[in-house]
Order: sequence, then C-alpha cells, then structure tokens
Amino acid sequence: MPDGSSVACREKLKMLSENHAELAQMLQDAFEDAVLMGVEPEAMREIFFELVRSLQSPKRSADA
Amino acid sequence: MPDGSSVACREKLKMLSENHAELAQMLQDAFEDAVLMGVEPEAMREIFFELVRSLQSPKRSADA
Repeated sequence: MPDGSSVACREKLKMLSENHAELAQMLQDAFEDAVLMGVEPEAMREIFFELVRSLQSPKRSADA
Repeated sequence: MPDGSSVACREKLKMLSENHAELAQMLQDAFEDAVLMGVEPEAMREIFFELVRSLQSPKRSADA
C-alpha cells in the first residue's frame, strides 16, 4: 500500500534501527551480568539462541 | 568465594531470571514490529542470531 510511502518507509527503518540498537545493548548487559555471575559465555549464548528460535511470528493481517 | 552464599546465590538467580524475562519480551516485541513491517521472520531471526554471536564477553576479574 504505497501511501506517503517514502516517509513511512523512513519511519519504519528508523524504528527498526532503534529497536536493534536497544536490543543489542540489553543483550550485551544481560550477557555481561550472567558471565560475571559465573555462567559460561557459550552456555549463555545458547540460551539466547533458544530465545530467538522460540519467537512467535505474528499473523500478518495484510496477508489474510 | 562462598560468603553469605545461599542468599547471594538466590539473588543472582533472581536477577538472571528477571533479565531473561525482560529480554524475551523485548525480543518478541522487536520481532513482531519487524515482521509486521514486512521483514521476513527468518531474516529477522538471522539478525538476532548475529547479535548474539557478536556479544563481547567481559573479562572476569575473579579469574585474573
């Protein structure tokens, strides 16, 4: 649906980029907390991988 | 270093558990935002995997 598309697109990219930066920081902080508390780095990474694998994809109403 | 260990351990586990719940929610929200904006779910998962792979492990001063 290209309505006001280039502005909308720029807004979307901005939001995705902000989400990405915020997540990267939170993941890094949680990773450091865990490692400093004695969790093995590779075990912690595996826990994060599992989180990502288990993410639920939303239904896209645009496709319905 | 077991000083006041069982309380300290419980606090650590509580913190790790809270971090985990918060991250799971943030990842899920960011994932849904991205998919609803048209990013392919599997592409988004790959981006998250890459974030996890690139996490920097802190130096553990306890080991030094």
